[in-house]
Amino acid sequence: TRSKLPDVGTTIFTVIGQLSAEHNAINLSQGAPNFPCDPQLVAGVTRAMQENHNQYAPMTGLRSLKERIAQKIADLYHTHYDIDSEVLITASASQGLYSAISGLVHPGDEVIYFEPSFDSYAPIVRLQGATPIAIKLTVPDFAVNWNEVQAAITPRTRMIIVNTPHNPSGQVFSRADLDHLAALTRNTDIVILSDEVYEHVVFDGEPHHGMATHPQLAERSVIVSSFGKTYHVTGWRVGYCVAPAELMDEICKVHQFLMFSADTPMQYAFAEQMRDPQGWLMLSSFYQRKRDLLQTLLADSPFRLLPSAGSFFLLADYSAFSDESDSEMVKRLITEYGVATIPLSAFYTDGTDNKLIRLSFAKDEATLRAGAQALCRVK
Amino acid sequence: TRSKLPDVGTTIFTVIGQLSAEHNAINLSQGAPNFPCDPQLVAGVTRAMQENHNQYAPMTGLRSLKERIAQKIADLYHTHYDIDSEVLITASASQGLYSAISGLVHPGDEVIYFEPSFDSYAPIVRLQGATPIAIKLTVPDFAVNWNEVQAAITPRTRMIIVNTPHNPSGQVFSRADLDHLAALTRNTDIVILSDEVYEHVVFDGEPHHGMATHPQLAERSVIVSSFGKTYHVTGWRVGYCVAPAELMDEICKVHQFLMFSADTPMQYAFAEQMRDPQGWLMLSSFYQRKRDLLQTLLADSPFRLLPSAGSFFLLADYSAFSDESDSEMVKRLITEYGVATIPLSAFYTDGTDNKLIRLSFAKDEATLRAGAQALCRVK
Ligand SMILES: CSCCC(=O)C(=O)O
Ligand SMILES: CSCCC(=O)C(=O)O
Repeated sequence: TRSKLPDVGTTIFTVIGQLSAEHNAINLSQGAPNFPCDPQLVAGVTRAMQENHNQYAPMTGLRSLKERIAQKIADLYHTHYDIDSEVLITASASQGLYSAISGLVHPGDEVIYFEPSFDSYAPIVRLQGATPIAIKLTVPDFAVNWNEVQAAITPRTRMIIVNTPHNPSGQVFSRADLDHLAALTRNTDIVILSDEVYEHVVFDGEPHHGMATHPQLAERSVIVSSFGKTYHVTGWRVGYCVAPAELMDEICKVHQFLMFSADTPMQYAFAEQMRDPQGWLMLSSFYQRKRDLLQTLLADSPFRLLPSAGSFFLLADYSAFSDESDSEMVKRLITEYGVATIPLSAFYTDGTDNKLIRLSFAKDEATLRAGAQALCRVK
Repeated sequence: TRSKLPDVGTTIFTVIGQLSAEHNAINLSQGAPNFPCDPQLVAGVTRAMQENHNQYAPMTGLRSLKERIAQKIADLYHTHYDIDSEVLITASASQGLYSAISGLVHPGDEVIYFEPSFDSYAPIVRLQGATPIAIKLTVPDFAVNWNEVQAAITPRTRMIIVNTPHNPSGQVFSRADLDHLAALTRNTDIVILSDEVYEHVVFDGEPHHGMATHPQLAERSVIVSSFGKTYHVTGWRVGYCVAPAELMDEICKVHQFLMFSADTPMQYAFAEQMRDPQGWLMLSSFYQRKRDLLQTLLADSPFRLLPSAGSFFLLADYSAFSDESDSEMVKRLITEYGVATIPLSAFYTDGTDNKLIRLSFAKDEATLRAGAQALCRVK
């Protein structure tokens, strides 16, 4: 059969997930918490189902949930989105990225993004008949060189995809990054697609420098976020995106046929849960404790850890003791040491191997301790 | 802004839903039940959440659910699908249709489908850079003229989309239809995409003639179905598709980036619920009673009802007493009589007006009675 994605195999998360399950490995691979969510959230879903909120939600989402999202964004970032025309509830952030790219990117367009990157961006762009243009971020700080971005912009550039906090490196944008991006895109019709699913997981007291914090960027940005990452329920498949109405109109034209609407009882439960801002306000310190614990536990390991300023992840360098490829290393960690991680090369389309593996610390303390113990034994 | 779907407005279900809500109308419009689901199903979701099944499901779906689906299909239709490579859980049938078309239809391809049709098929095809080729089904029986289909096939034809039982007409394929379709596609590489979300809602003791009942068709078909329609929970957004592995591979390449995975607790609950085949075996008689009730209640109305052999819908002809367009009629029914229906013209890309409106009988008895009472008063 002809293939629309001839070079694409199975996503790394499935490959590692299966191998890891076969070997009953300690799972530091996917950014999926292994601890329970708030029982109130579960009660909220149950209540919604019992109150017969089980049929199609409105296409763009439950109004009460959209109101809370707009309120949160106004409170945190001081940008105002219109509830009727600028907020869309999606069936996960992944699905929201797909609707946004499908709605806005045309055949022949170019889309700039940064590698290492979450593995869906480039294939989604290619599926539109458009060309993904990768700009490499380099070890150790994975900072964007904005001159390179400037040089990559052509008349065909339709979109720049950014991601802060960054999966997989744990790096975050500074205010200066936003200013550079704003300067580069001023007087163009380039849209920013900003994957901010870890917006509430920024460490060391720093604020989140998302697109909504910067008026000039907000007016050309589609911001995608997630409930799964914020509320420890990655399997519930609800996220959202916000964008100026003109962009949102085009996204909705696709979204209404792609998805129609997201899960109804879960939308009710999130609307209820969002009454308490502590849900997101405490998240940075919650995950910072996990990051710090993992760093402490691995201090005497053979791995050298790169700093992580946000997200669920940090990178570990093994070049001091092995020149295996990162895929070989990850396989060996699963089969010989019983601990699952993700090779950084999976986040590069050309498979660049930096001798780095990605560790997820979105795990309970026992798992972090057991995983670290295994990693400390590695030779 | 340039638009990828310049001719597309807001889906009719949103338009009517809003107007209907404003006028507090009795809702016979969308195919969404207004009665409760089985409390056991709700309990199943709650149990899954409490047992911490709240993180990403495997990309293709929960194994236990895929097993039950394969078993059901084997029992009912005698076709066997491989659980690992031929069954995919999707986040609704709508979303499954999108993954299937995106995975298999290339730019420049032609896709044959039948109108009136569910409003997503043609836009999804156009979004692939492919050309939807509509074949009109005509009043009153909406039967396919297979000679017309034969004549529409070209070397570019990649897919034929079928839908049985048919939304919006309520018509169903016969065994002879399947034989025609098999003969037409033999020795071609045309894929059949079969929307069978109403597979368990076939009236008057007839069997469902789906693609899985016909081995020659099954081997070239992607069959899409729904849990929402079968279990009265259209807002839970879980469906599935089955296809030969070679086709499924290509669908999954897109699906893994579009959706990654469907809702986890709901998958657990459906897997549990599917232990009892009565869930689908009783559905035809359950909905037949509703169809029969609505027909009886409307016997003395000014509308002439067309027969419905399956689905949640029947069509009502008002040409005897009005020459308004069907959109005007529907608007007037909402604003003057407080009852919401869908104009059949919304299911034709060219807006063909047959003076027919679509009634959904997926409603509780009180709603059917109140809706029919309003319709009996129409002048
Ligand atoms: C569908 S995987 C989502 C992202 C994530 O959890 C990861 O990168 O591990
Ligand atoms: C997203 S609308 C799904 C189909 C349906 O319910 C209808 O045709 O009314």
